[in-house]
Amino acid sequence: MAKQTFSFNQADIVTLWASTIGIERETLRINHDGSSAQTPHSPEWGDRNHQPYIQTDFGENQLEFITPPSSSTDEILQWLAALHQIVAQTNEKQGELLWPFSMPGKIPTNRDDIKVAQLTNQTELHYREHLADYYGKDVQLLSGIHYNLKINPATIEKHCPAGADYIEFSNQVYSKLARNFMRYRWILTYLLGAAPFVDESYATNLYGKPHTPIMRSIRQSRYGYQNHPSIQISYESLEAFVNDLEAAVESKALSVEKELYRDVRFRRAQPVRQLIEQGINYLEFRNFDINPFAPYGIWQEDMEFIRLFILSLLYIEDAATDEAIDLGQDYQFKTAEDHPLNPPINISEAEMVFAVMRELAVILDEHQLYKGSMVALVDKKGRLLNQPELTLSGQLFEIVQTPDNFLSLGMELAEEHQRTYIAHPYSLHGFESFELSTQDVIKEAIRHGIEVTVIDAKENLIKLDYDGHVEFVKNGNMTRHDSLISYFLMENKIATKVILDEAAVRVPAGLSFNTFEEGRTYYSQLTLDAFVIKPKNTNYGLGITIFEEKPTLDRYVKALEFAFAEDDTVLLEAFAKGTELRFYVQEGEVKAIVERQPAQVIGDGQSTVSQLIDQTNADPLRGKKHLAPLTFIEKGEAEMALLDAAGLSLESIPDSGQLVYLRRNSNISTGGLSIDRTDEVNASYKFIAVTAANALGANFCGVDIIMEDYSVAASNTNYHVIEANFNPMITLHRYPGVGKQRPVGRWVLEQLYPEIEFNTTF
Amino acid sequence: MAKQTFSFNQADIVTLWASTIGIERETLRINHDGSSAQTPHSPEWGDRNHQPYIQTDFGENQLEFITPPSSSTDEILQWLAALHQIVAQTNEKQGELLWPFSMPGKIPTNRDDIKVAQLTNQTELHYREHLADYYGKDVQLLSGIHYNLKINPATIEKHCPAGADYIEFSNQVYSKLARNFMRYRWILTYLLGAAPFVDESYATNLYGKPHTPIMRSIRQSRYGYQNHPSIQISYESLEAFVNDLEAAVESKALSVEKELYRDVRFRRAQPVRQLIEQGINYLEFRNFDINPFAPYGIWQEDMEFIRLFILSLLYIEDAATDEAIDLGQDYQFKTAEDHPLNPPINISEAEMVFAVMRELAVILDEHQLYKGSMVALVDKKGRLLNQPELTLSGQLFEIVQTPDNFLSLGMELAEEHQRTYIAHPYSLHGFESFELSTQDVIKEAIRHGIEVTVIDAKENLIKLDYDGHVEFVKNGNMTRHDSLISYFLMENKIATKVILDEAAVRVPAGLSFNTFEEGRTYYSQLTLDAFVIKPKNTNYGLGITIFEEKPTLDRYVKALEFAFAEDDTVLLEAFAKGTELRFYVQEGEVKAIVERQPAQVIGDGQSTVSQLIDQTNADPLRGKKHLAPLTFIEKGEAEMALLDAAGLSLESIPDSGQLVYLRRNSNISTGGLSIDRTDEVNASYKFIAVTAANALGANFCGVDIIMEDYSVAASNTNYHVIEANFNPMITLHRYPGVGKQRPVGRWVLEQLYPEIEFNTTF
Repeated sequence: MAKQTFSFNQADIVTLWASTIGIERETLRINHDGSSAQTPHSPEWGDRNHQPYIQTDFGENQLEFITPPSSSTDEILQWLAALHQIVAQTNEKQGELLWPFSMPGKIPTNRDDIKVAQLTNQTELHYREHLADYYGKDVQLLSGIHYNLKINPATIEKHCPAGADYIEFSNQVYSKLARNFMRYRWILTYLLGAAPFVDESYATNLYGKPHTPIMRSIRQSRYGYQNHPSIQISYESLEAFVNDLEAAVESKALSVEKELYRDVRFRRAQPVRQLIEQGINYLEFRNFDINPFAPYGIWQEDMEFIRLFILSLLYIEDAATDEAIDLGQDYQFKTAEDHPLNPPINISEAEMVFAVMRELAVILDEHQLYKGSMVALVDKKGRLLNQPELTLSGQLFEIVQTPDNFLSLGMELAEEHQRTYIAHPYSLHGFESFELSTQDVIKEAIRHGIEVTVIDAKENLIKLDYDGHVEFVKNGNMTRHDSLISYFLMENKIATKVILDEAAVRVPAGLSFNTFEEGRTYYSQLTLDAFVIKPKNTNYGLGITIFEEKPTLDRYVKALEFAFAEDDTVLLEAFAKGTELRFYVQEGEVKAIVERQPAQVIGDGQSTVSQLIDQTNADPLRGKKHLAPLTFIEKGEAEMALLDAAGLSLESIPDSGQLVYLRRNSNISTGGLSIDRTDEVNASYKFIAVTAANALGANFCGVDIIMEDYSVAASNTNYHVIEANFNPMITLHRYPGVGKQRPVGRWVLEQLYPEIEFNTTF
Repeated sequence: MAKQTFSFNQADIVTLWASTIGIERETLRINHDGSSAQTPHSPEWGDRNHQPYIQTDFGENQLEFITPPSSSTDEILQWLAALHQIVAQTNEKQGELLWPFSMPGKIPTNRDDIKVAQLTNQTELHYREHLADYYGKDVQLLSGIHYNLKINPATIEKHCPAGADYIEFSNQVYSKLARNFMRYRWILTYLLGAAPFVDESYATNLYGKPHTPIMRSIRQSRYGYQNHPSIQISYESLEAFVNDLEAAVESKALSVEKELYRDVRFRRAQPVRQLIEQGINYLEFRNFDINPFAPYGIWQEDMEFIRLFILSLLYIEDAATDEAIDLGQDYQFKTAEDHPLNPPINISEAEMVFAVMRELAVILDEHQLYKGSMVALVDKKGRLLNQPELTLSGQLFEIVQTPDNFLSLGMELAEEHQRTYIAHPYSLHGFESFELSTQDVIKEAIRHGIEVTVIDAKENLIKLDYDGHVEFVKNGNMTRHDSLISYFLMENKIATKVILDEAAVRVPAGLSFNTFEEGRTYYSQLTLDAFVIKPKNTNYGLGITIFEEKPTLDRYVKALEFAFAEDDTVLLEAFAKGTELRFYVQEGEVKAIVERQPAQVIGDGQSTVSQLIDQTNADPLRGKKHLAPLTFIEKGEAEMALLDAAGLSLESIPDSGQLVYLRRNSNISTGGLSIDRTDEVNASYKFIAVTAANALGANFCGVDIIMEDYSVAASNTNYHVIEANFNPMITLHRYPGVGKQRPVGRWVLEQLYPEIEFNTTF
């Protein structure tokens, strides 16, 4: 196979930029004293045989977070945030943290305490035991960032010569990229190397202890994870690479192909020979140290910079020979083993690469392909060539100075990151733009190893995939189990009432008006004392007026106008007093019941109303409207009016235990309180809720029932079903202000995936 | 059981007015020469054992139309219109009409040609044979209107004395009403009797030939359908009635209870003794002659007048004794047998009843419970007491004068009514406010005896019930078989594309913009030559711009603005040229395919373009926008511009066979033409459409595929799936402008009701 020369135009960077990347981030679980966590990999993170996102690497306490590929670093960051949060929520319960450095800060004195991952896959288990034996256990504790990149196939296709084989051509593009990366990666090591220190007992089986206690990156040095120096693998062509690797395994120099630890790995299903026929799918760049300052191990800016660095290598002359690659390897070790404050080993070579990057950055900026200025970013990194103290390892050296301070900095950062991970526990970090119900479903899916693809974030529409079993979910609980007609029946209050009435479910008496005039005329026939006027189709309580006694014609007409503003059909129905409960029904079963009460505080005999509001608002479940399960109570006009009516003010000090309402309405969006009542309600009401849901053909819905006393059995006179909601507010049950949290998101997944054994400990 | 006296307040008429009524209308199928139709009851009207709407009465050619009960005469009229249309569409194919009079115009010389209904129910068959034998066959040809009325239970409840038994009280209310009706119905006979003539050979077994060839109502006279005069049944109490009726059957004076032909029948499941315990459900008033001028046998005004007349009887002193009822019977026969131009038999009694009606009418008008003025209607009818020539029979006498003219008037009216019945065949008469697709489903449901209840007319939401099997349908084809998530996936063009792409279905390349700015910026990266800009969620083609070559930035920006006006996410995708076909997929099968072409006419070498347009618009399938399967072609600016571009004008005379387009776009709403292609398309495209529908989890949908040549097999390059519609326009397939009509409504029902054997002859 003759090498084909190819050259991308600078303008191609526009499409090349759409190349997809993916991040794998490794980290050690540790205790608050810095020692290795001895707990097993938690079942809360799913079954490791079916878990694409959260894995164990070498050690049982060595986590690996894997993001799905994306051309958007925003998305990569989203995923890293979510995965860290999910793991950290379990860690928090176990008193554990994530170690923020590539090199371990505290290696167990007894090396037997370094446990290989307890995998059920015996081949994988034995492989790890071999590695521990041959390379030493210490080196297995190293953690890094793997950066995967798949070149946009459209760009490769565009340059594939007429008549040439696409796979062959694509392999050549990837091979050149791999060679040039091997040749020039030392520049990234200079800039981003971040492993200058390690526990002083650290040693490898092949190279012993590092020759100096401080270097730019111990992990990337010979004292990191390196194969035996006798293993020589050619990169001159893919064929040569495959042949050499097969020979190394044949001669038992390597136990398996994947034991080859090089900083670039060609990715495709094993064995490597398939690369030639099926083509390289993407490249895995494995040299990156974890940035201890970044909660997720890498800053988004660096992901972007690395992407440009890698793509720029396509524009640099091919380091075609193994001699060139050996030189690159030499530079790499020297850079890694150099003192953090020393200058680059070959500044003119670095400047050459930066010049290529800068030209491409200009084009990226012209097309606004980076949210900031890529030129400015390149220049900023370029300046570091003359400022080693501002490189990552330089900064770390400035802070730590001596290895003795290494552990304490690591612990400080670990604690700080943990606080980031566990903030806003009800949300899914990175996915905050979704409705809370969708966040809950995604979180549960990730925990159980169900692959999640966002189809349309704005519409809360996601795709799930578990071993090829695909499902779609919208708004956190609409699935293929819900029928379209049921949705329309619930959306339409007239239809709902007709159907419930026929199913012998009590609904408020009433009638509907198709025109304002019809409604106005009806006033003279009005016999109801207390009644509600509401638009036919509404799911948000808009346009509703409640009259507790017969209104004047004027007020009646205003209520009609109010309702007709929302819909062209309006209902008038009897108003029943009592407690209104929301029944969450799924699959013919009441799963949760909640009561909503108006915004309120309870006196302690010392604090003012104002202080009590502040204390109530400190509840981590409270936040801004629609962004948290509960909403901050305001100190606005409506609240003042109600206080005033009760003879109180913000400065009043209520008695201990005194309940002070701040609102009349019980909407969560105005500070209302949700209280779980699932285990307190008489079973007869659950039967009514289920009957209503079944009559409407609903797989899931929220049934609102008003009743005099929920502890007393339902009779034919003491309840009314007000409506059934096809899009009930899940967070009422998931994160009630008072009472037990109900795992609604998990219930949705349980219905979709009966083949998965769901973990119910959270 | 002591009789309880009760009195309703005049104000009660407001709630009494909400009493429900139902109409049963009988009619004979005849040939165009007036002779009895000899064809069997058509299977197109469903299985008579499961057909609540269309039945046979006595004779095989004697139809009975039965409306569901309603308090709205608008609805009653809707149903009558629909039932007449459905029957008349079959009659039209068979060369038959509906005889418009109660009395037959042409009795078969050979009485054996009067065939009793060929029912599979042997009891019913034998009963009819007994009747023919005992009463004579001629009398079995009589047709009438039965008027059912159920008093609003709320009004009865309101007056039920505390501690009294509701059923007992209700029965007393109904009994009084029945008695007073028997006592005063002669007034209605005077006003609405409409059976002055009959075929001269007519005779009954009990009374022989009428004593005079002309009387107000032969049907309501002794020469109508009357029991033997020896049968005496008391109406003084319900118990007496039941006892007498049971005795009459016991003594074989009557073969079964229902053989009692009185003008009021107490309704409830048989046997009559159940009336006492279970209560009278409603009353059936059976005396009304068919109004030959009314296409549906009765004018809406008369339904309303009769309702008031009946309800007024509740306000008149109880005709408590059998003597009083006998007097009523005497008045009734005398009125029926009187000459049409004679005055009322007891004008002061009639005026007394009218005075009660008028007082109630005043209240009805105050509450606007009648769409016109009820007082004016009462006064209009009241004037007839002094103008017998304006009563129905009076008018008929004025027109016909001698019995010899009776048949020809009947035939004239029958032909005229038939033209009414068969107009606008694509619609369902009475249900024109629904979408055509819903009209189609309702029509098919009625034909097959599936009960239809309109849940929400505005939303095209109906309920179906076949022997207790309930289904709901919205928009003519959304049912419980359609999943909610599938609806959202199709509604969302981004989701559709992602999913189809993964299912290896070719979709146009493209991308989406979440902001206008994002879209504007993309212009510099634009590489597509021909492309479409469209909003993410649209089902109506709004906001779409097609560029066949790269536009200027200005035009590009305008297209973006246009699309962003419809949605906050906009798609840009490659535009493929070719023929766009709509595939209607249901249950994993392509059921129909249609092509849409722009508005067009074809020259005949003689007519001008203007005349050709007029001829095209004469197609019965064309009508106003959205109200007919095809839309009138206009002679507006857009049409003129296109003619002009082709060097033509409205006055040009195209060559014979010359195709002249009047529009560029192929929308049906601008005169476009739909052409059925179901049997012409290469099967490979059907496979693609089904694959697309399956990937989206769609039970039914309309898949739009654009292709170069639909007769050639699909390859990986010659087609694109443009979108999948969850609410496809059914009439494209049901009533295409060219080609075979596809029964989409029936397909929907076939899926819902596998237990029904559907008739496929229409």
